[in-house]
Amino acid sequence: MAARNLKLLVEYDGTDFEGWQRQAPPARTVQAALEDALLEMTRAPTLVRGAGRTDAGVHARGQVASFVTEAAIPVVGFRRGLNALLDPDVAVLDVAEVDPAFDPRRSARGKHYAYRVLTRESRSPLLRRTSWHVGARLDLAAMAAAGRHLLGEHDFSAFRSADCDRTNPVRVIRRLDVSESGDLVTIDVEATAFLKNMVRVIAGTLVEVGRGRRTPDQVADALARRDRSRAGRTAPAHGLTLERVFYE
Amino acid sequence: MAARNLKLLVEYDGTDFEGWQRQAPPARTVQAALEDALLEMTRAPTLVRGAGRTDAGVHARGQVASFVTEAAIPVVGFRRGLNALLDPDVAVLDVAEVDPAFDPRRSARGKHYAYRVLTRESRSPLLRRTSWHVGARLDLAAMAAAGRHLLGEHDFSAFRSADCDRTNPVRVIRRLDVSESGDLVTIDVEATAFLKNMVRVIAGTLVEVGRGRRTPDQVADALARRDRSRAGRTAPAHGLTLERVFYE
Repeated sequence: MAARNLKLLVEYDGTDFEGWQRQAPPARTVQAALEDALLEMTRAPTLVRGAGRTDAGVHARGQVASFVTEAAIPVVGFRRGLNALLDPDVAVLDVAEVDPAFDPRRSARGKHYAYRVLTRESRSPLLRRTSWHVGARLDLAAMAAAGRHLLGEHDFSAFRSADCDRTNPVRVIRRLDVSESGDLVTIDVEATAFLKNMVRVIAGTLVEVGRGRRTPDQVADALARRDRSRAGRTAPAHGLTLERVFYE
Repeated sequence: MAARNLKLLVEYDGTDFEGWQRQAPPARTVQAALEDALLEMTRAPTLVRGAGRTDAGVHARGQVASFVTEAAIPVVGFRRGLNALLDPDVAVLDVAEVDPAFDPRRSARGKHYAYRVLTRESRSPLLRRTSWHVGARLDLAAMAAAGRHLLGEHDFSAFRSADCDRTNPVRVIRRLDVSESGDLVTIDVEATAFLKNMVRVIAGTLVEVGRGRRTPDQVADALARRDRSRAGRTAPAHGLTLERVFYE
């Protein structure tokens, strides 16, 4: 059979993964889990490319990946076979044949991440894996005001990990919404692309604004000065979920 | 200090518990976890009573319990102390002093359970602990029609576990709603009291109606004949959550 380029839509609970990217064993990663399952199905070593390298502990409801295969397995067979082989904390929601030129990272036109914060005083057993328990009321209006400073095209040097290796720190945030449902505050961030830990630094900074420990103007100042030390702490990985990757 | 009767609001992820009720070790139960933590805090063996004995694997967002103590610890100290001692999958959301006559089960005026069903074909890593993966579209109108037959006061002999030991099988369902949000169907059931496995048998039966394998009239017939064998299968425990217990 001729080689096909197949696109995967992947969901995972990142709690027990060392992130997306394959590492030296025995690190358990999502990429390695998919590659190992494909090796078992096709008997051919297969490289799986992802749209983004989520950190250890980060979840995905809509990660996108792709692989090239010569195996004569229909797309529905790949979906069912992979879900039968993969552990319960990772699943393939869709498999589709795409153009040979499709690359999940380079073809992407944007990504949507959601960061979830639990504000009630007591921790939550049912939300413990997917939200950061801050345990304090947050001023949503102040957080939204701070978020508005980050909208649009900016040099986000202040909002990335110190070891981020991207030479160009300019990114475009298309959407930054702060909303509340009961005790759960959600920060939705959509951008064309992200720097390392960018959403987690934004979330950590906005939470400090929400607690009154930092003003929206100080956030604008950190952005303008491109100074990481003027932004807030990096929020923990387990509050973050990659919701969707956008393509044309 | 005089004895106080303290009421607890408890949340738990039931996945790794053998249900609410204390059993012979090494069974891990919610009641035993609370009693063990209270023994550590107060140094006195303390009986914790619950509003309902949830089965192994069933979750709670609003279980209610109570205990009598002579310990001179303020209610906020109990809440924080218990949350510090308890494992991450169980938490105390509120502690309040109540009348000595308050009994979480006998004083209850009703309970609200929610049963969650995932209808999409692929399983969900993020919802795997709290929903039943049916993997098929459901006819919600038919499920709602079947549910209407169960509303009100009835002999629910057809909708309880074969080993339910209650002599009076008459119960009153005050609310039975079937709703959908994306791929997740939720069956909300509120009643003055429940028989053993009652919500799980109702959920299993309504799912069969939703799949077209049973008609709403057949559900009415099972109810009228009080015949367990004419109702559907018992839905698995992990889709069920005790949402709230009502008091006057």
